[in-house]
Amino acid sequence: MKKVIGILGGMGPAATADMLQKFIRFTPARCDQEHIPLLISSIPDIPDRTAALLHGGESPEPLMLKYIQGLERAGADCILIACNTAHYWFSRLQQQCHTKMLSMIEATVAEAAASSTKNIGLLATDATLATRLYQDALEARGLNCIVPDKASQQEVMKSIYLLKAGQEQEAEALMLAQKEALIGKGAEIMILGCTEIPVILQKDQQNRPHLYVDSTSALVRAAIQWYRQA
Amino acid sequence: MKKVIGILGGMGPAATADMLQKFIRFTPARCDQEHIPLLISSIPDIPDRTAALLHGGESPEPLMLKYIQGLERAGADCILIACNTAHYWFSRLQQQCHTKMLSMIEATVAEAAASSTKNIGLLATDATLATRLYQDALEARGLNCIVPDKASQQEVMKSIYLLKAGQEQEAEALMLAQKEALIGKGAEIMILGCTEIPVILQKDQQNRPHLYVDSTSALVRAAIQWYRQA
Repeated sequence: MKKVIGILGGMGPAATADMLQKFIRFTPARCDQEHIPLLISSIPDIPDRTAALLHGGESPEPLMLKYIQGLERAGADCILIACNTAHYWFSRLQQQCHTKMLSMIEATVAEAAASSTKNIGLLATDATLATRLYQDALEARGLNCIVPDKASQQEVMKSIYLLKAGQEQEAEALMLAQKEALIGKGAEIMILGCTEIPVILQKDQQNRPHLYVDSTSALVRAAIQWYRQA
Repeated sequence: MKKVIGILGGMGPAATADMLQKFIRFTPARCDQEHIPLLISSIPDIPDRTAALLHGGESPEPLMLKYIQGLERAGADCILIACNTAHYWFSRLQQQCHTKMLSMIEATVAEAAASSTKNIGLLATDATLATRLYQDALEARGLNCIVPDKASQQEVMKSIYLLKAGQEQEAEALMLAQKEALIGKGAEIMILGCTEIPVILQKDQQNRPHLYVDSTSALVRAAIQWYRQA
């Protein structure tokens, strides 16, 4: 019996589509039937993660759990969350569901650690920075995590929300400048630690693939490996 | 309570990703939460539809029904099938499930009829042609359906299976030639009546949007309209 991978998406929908595309691109398949079985929940009414963690907004946890349970009922054997900030609730969700979950943070940090660089830039949401999801994991491996300064981080957030509003070009121009600023601060490679950012920097990532550790790609690769061993 | 649209996909995965992208692109949304709630089944082990209808292959109906039931259990209120050929089983599936289904064939023929043209070309699988899913619906509206000649149709099929195998450029070159052949036979506009074909002809569709009636886009527009009225 083939296993099915469930994706808790919708945070946002463009990032979910990007994850699906990467499953297709990373799977060597000669026909439909050789692709990885996926169930995808892209129900986007989950409350904003950064607003919940930093501005007293409604918690996304109840709806995330509800949609994970929907994926379980539909037949998922393993769950991925297509949002970095949402990984703040990863352990609590894992405790409440019956299905194996793979962590995007772990998969991404493992790829960063496998590079031979020490100084890792981090492009992510305010809440992912504030909760130190990446910094602690990188420092535990002896790596140096470089984050944007305050003004630059405001531009990173603006870019992410522009992409969520469908303004791709404006988002890209803003994010490219913050990437350059991080290189100026000494970053040798850069974690794209918000699933909107690989969508925003898609072209630059194609041109300079070795500069980036893409959290969506890292989790997709980990999931394909899990599927092959399951 | 917001409604959720379920997509029976995986036939193939690239066509499913294209449908998700079109939901995002066609929905004016300023933030994640304003997008359409979607549940997507991209479990691609459903037997090949053309092989079942024309070459004595295994029927895809049992697995299509199973995955529709999975979408229902996960919370879908309306089901779309992201494959034209699979619509041969549309009525039988509709009878066996409890959820409203929207037909890709109906949505596409309605868009073709709304154009002011009489001579409609059809690019689709051998099985979609043989079962006359489109020809009968077009002729019932007094429209003339122009299909490729035998040699050209073989190239259409080759192109579709190249895309399913990830060979996008080879697929595109083949399909562009068959599109020109249909224009040579008098087609004024052309139905992309296999969900792989809008992926194959993506660039040409961007350059010449009025030449095409894209079955994926037509069904997405019908589904967004259903969602707004639900």
